[in-house]
Amino acid sequence: MRSVEPIRWTDDGVILLDQRRLPAEVVHITYTDYRDLAAAIKDMVIRGAPAIGVAASMGIALAISRSRAATLDELRAEFKTICDTFARTRPTAVDLFWAIERFTRKFDSLAQNAAANNLDPIKEALIEEAQKVHRERQAADEAIGKFGAALLPASGRVMTQCNAGALATAGIGTALGVIRVAVETGHKIDVLVPETRPYLQGARLTAWELHQDKIPLTLITDNMVGHFLKTGGVGAIVVGADRIAANGDTANKIGTYPMAVLAREHKVPFFVAAPISTLDLSIASGEQIPIEQRPSAEVTHVHGVRIAPEVTVANPAFDVTPSHLIAAIITERGVARAPYAESLKRLAK
Amino acid sequence: MRSVEPIRWTDDGVILLDQRRLPAEVVHITYTDYRDLAAAIKDMVIRGAPAIGVAASMGIALAISRSRAATLDELRAEFKTICDTFARTRPTAVDLFWAIERFTRKFDSLAQNAAANNLDPIKEALIEEAQKVHRERQAADEAIGKFGAALLPASGRVMTQCNAGALATAGIGTALGVIRVAVETGHKIDVLVPETRPYLQGARLTAWELHQDKIPLTLITDNMVGHFLKTGGVGAIVVGADRIAANGDTANKIGTYPMAVLAREHKVPFFVAAPISTLDLSIASGEQIPIEQRPSAEVTHVHGVRIAPEVTVANPAFDVTPSHLIAAIITERGVARAPYAESLKRLAK
Repeated sequence: MRSVEPIRWTDDGVILLDQRRLPAEVVHITYTDYRDLAAAIKDMVIRGAPAIGVAASMGIALAISRSRAATLDELRAEFKTICDTFARTRPTAVDLFWAIERFTRKFDSLAQNAAANNLDPIKEALIEEAQKVHRERQAADEAIGKFGAALLPASGRVMTQCNAGALATAGIGTALGVIRVAVETGHKIDVLVPETRPYLQGARLTAWELHQDKIPLTLITDNMVGHFLKTGGVGAIVVGADRIAANGDTANKIGTYPMAVLAREHKVPFFVAAPISTLDLSIASGEQIPIEQRPSAEVTHVHGVRIAPEVTVANPAFDVTPSHLIAAIITERGVARAPYAESLKRLAK
Repeated sequence: MRSVEPIRWTDDGVILLDQRRLPAEVVHITYTDYRDLAAAIKDMVIRGAPAIGVAASMGIALAISRSRAATLDELRAEFKTICDTFARTRPTAVDLFWAIERFTRKFDSLAQNAAANNLDPIKEALIEEAQKVHRERQAADEAIGKFGAALLPASGRVMTQCNAGALATAGIGTALGVIRVAVETGHKIDVLVPETRPYLQGARLTAWELHQDKIPLTLITDNMVGHFLKTGGVGAIVVGADRIAANGDTANKIGTYPMAVLAREHKVPFFVAAPISTLDLSIASGEQIPIEQRPSAEVTHVHGVRIAPEVTVANPAFDVTPSHLIAAIITERGVARAPYAESLKRLAK
């Protein structure tokens, strides 16, 4: 298994790279029970909305393929329980619900044509479907990378946020895919990486991932974003997305919204790179995107060491960037620009 | 010694509360050699520009009072070495240079009238001068608190940055002094405290200090500032300052500048609370303020635990907020508003 491969389907189970232990240790865990895999998503062994979509797909396939259901009705009931379990893991990640919906449609269509006493074709088809989701993800990242690289400056600093890389998408990454393709096609880029508290995805994952690929980077703390936009020759910002509303408002890791406001202040283009599956056209604007509140221990402790007294803590995992601050949304089907209500609708068709 | 008393002059030496160990441990260290005290300033045993001014004052008094110089000329040479040592500790903190200048003037004036073979009156006068600096600091904070409290809303959230509290000033604090007086005079305030990476002065010091005083607070990470300004009913922001240029541009802890940009975006008044000693009218604008670059280990390690791979790190300790983003600068002599070139000059007289 390559070190920056976050997930793999095998006959023995679903293998995850434990992202909680990076960069100190590279540890792989094999999951044979879907409930453990769901817990792993919740505990952020794997994270990043697109990768969560792949993990949930493989998790559903894993569960069904190992089901002991004797009849189609039993399998259908189990399928419902499995989907409910995954739906409860990370409520903001829209790819999760996209995967559940895709598998529900697939299951229903397979069930219609299934023999009541032979469930093997359903099991095999869902395993194949999970692998197809993974292949499609990889192809989508490559396309996003190609569209996005054309928007980056030929040289200079590019800032990102959190980890929208291979670790987050199970491909080459969305935001980092754009940077990877840019570097491969000759752009001289130095990546400014905010550490992304409280979970430190920037410091632990993005810095590690770029370092593995020998892409130059500078690690900073989150509160240095303004200083470097003001003084540091940043040519562009490219971030991922956890959910994009019909009007282009984008939920992404906490800290993305202030970055977008500061980008506008300094006339630096702010790009969102995300697969079509991140679009949620069912919601009109960002105000309706639910924001996950995570445990306070993530803020008060770092690697188990207490860094703050026992006080009240807030820990929203995401913020919402209004679309008027976004220069373009880069998808695998092309680049959307304002007015997003129209451009996103066209791409989503 | 009270728990939030960061520095005290005693006949046995200068006692510092070791702020590096807060909030886990309350440890006091007695310094008898000025070089150790200078190292303590550099290592942030004590930090915050006004407190550094008091510490340097006491450090100079400590060194001179324990000098073995036999003649005035020897003492003068030593005095120069002592001042140079303190000047090299924290280059951005203007109070440091203010203290050195004040003691240089005092020393020169005492030396003029001194008997060549009796240096005791100089030693005694410098000890008294250091204690006077401390008393003046405490009185200044009380005045800043009173002027500033009148500008805060009667109820709601007030955001601050870093620690501009008792720990930083050796009084009741500048920014936290404003909040303390507001709370004492009946304002119902909940303080939003960003943790302030990399050194975590917000989490370790401000949260601890407010908690000691039973002032309600909510601890957040630095990248949540935008989210809470957008959604959280913040009525005002009040921060300290490390150096203020003649035009009002203000150097303060990294993360202050983006907070000011976001405050304007959300029409939240952004106040700077600082003693007159923080003014540096010798520099026209913030562009000329030197920005201290601190060691990368502060970013890559937390309490000795590595949180990032070995990559390039930037660690500027301060950023500069242009004065057009500042609603008012609160000093012990009154409140300055734009145009600051005029209002600050008037207050400085």
